[in-house]
Amino acid sequence: MELPRLYAITDRKKYGEDFLKTLESILKSGVKMVQLREKDLKDKELYELAKEVRELTRRYDALLLINERFDIALAVGADGVHLPEKSFPPSVVKRINPNFIVGFSAHSLESARYAEREGADFITLSPIFRTSSHPEAEPIGLKTLKEVSEKVNIPVYALGGITWEKIKVCYKNGAYGIAGITMFAEKANV
Amino acid sequence: MELPRLYAITDRKKYGEDFLKTLESILKSGVKMVQLREKDLKDKELYELAKEVRELTRRYDALLLINERFDIALAVGADGVHLPEKSFPPSVVKRINPNFIVGFSAHSLESARYAEREGADFITLSPIFRTSSHPEAEPIGLKTLKEVSEKVNIPVYALGGITWEKIKVCYKNGAYGIAGITMFAEKANV
Repeated sequence: MELPRLYAITDRKKYGEDFLKTLESILKSGVKMVQLREKDLKDKELYELAKEVRELTRRYDALLLINERFDIALAVGADGVHLPEKSFPPSVVKRINPNFIVGFSAHSLESARYAEREGADFITLSPIFRTSSHPEAEPIGLKTLKEVSEKVNIPVYALGGITWEKIKVCYKNGAYGIAGITMFAEKANV
Repeated sequence: MELPRLYAITDRKKYGEDFLKTLESILKSGVKMVQLREKDLKDKELYELAKEVRELTRRYDALLLINERFDIALAVGADGVHLPEKSFPPSVVKRINPNFIVGFSAHSLESARYAEREGADFITLSPIFRTSSHPEAEPIGLKTLKEVSEKVNIPVYALGGITWEKIKVCYKNGAYGIAGITMFAEKANV
């Protein structure tokens, strides 16, 4: 299966009052892969939201990954899980559910290689540019994007401070796809 | 399978510096069911600790349940999961892994009945007495313990403020077993 090129990561704060409506706009625009990433929700709230998001993404034939919580991912029938760099290894998820798509948040060549070795299906690499979501994080830049994309054999999604104008330069530097929060949310809210 | 009668719930703050050593003392004393409940740990830390606790409990032939996180439970090969009242329903876990033992934290007859209906294997009922772990929580008392134990058909573990002296009166009021944090930790640390 070929993974979609655009990967929207949710953020209730940026999606505005009607979370599902914003997400639906994003799906309508053609995004086929979504990561539900609402770390501050309690388990049950996250589970309830994930059920709704599963229904919505299914309607638009989009893949759904849940950030870190593969119990919630299993519970709602998501397509996979997206693991932060400091979570358990991708191999643990693959052992329990080989059918799960496993994404991994890499921030360096080293962690990208680790993810590949551990069986992740793809990585996000971040932050490429300075980003409002993590303003304190030093950008790793296009050079690192290029290097990582050349040295690992799984798809690399450029993430962090990416605008619609900057997509092209990311592809030029080896990105397989583009991941983002703000760029999708803002477009949907226009 | 008959569930063990004593159910030790962990608490790093009460177990002291050497968590595993305290837990081992508890296991040595004959406790055959443990709930790892360390809600403030990050996913990876919890996963790492759970692996060690799994190894230790296995050595003492004791059941291991993980609080709420059935992804971690699956990842380390635990025997089941213990769900807080405000988590997702026990049926969700049973659907994904029918072999998992599912405990549920009930605080009233109503939630005990809900747990039974949803397929929980047992409940803890709390707080029976006033407890240092949740000093603000109003005790539900022995009368409620008796009522719940009569009205549900799954094992009821009395929990909350139980000392070794009070075990007998809990059994007299219908408890199937005794669950606790402090009572086990203190005995181990003597």
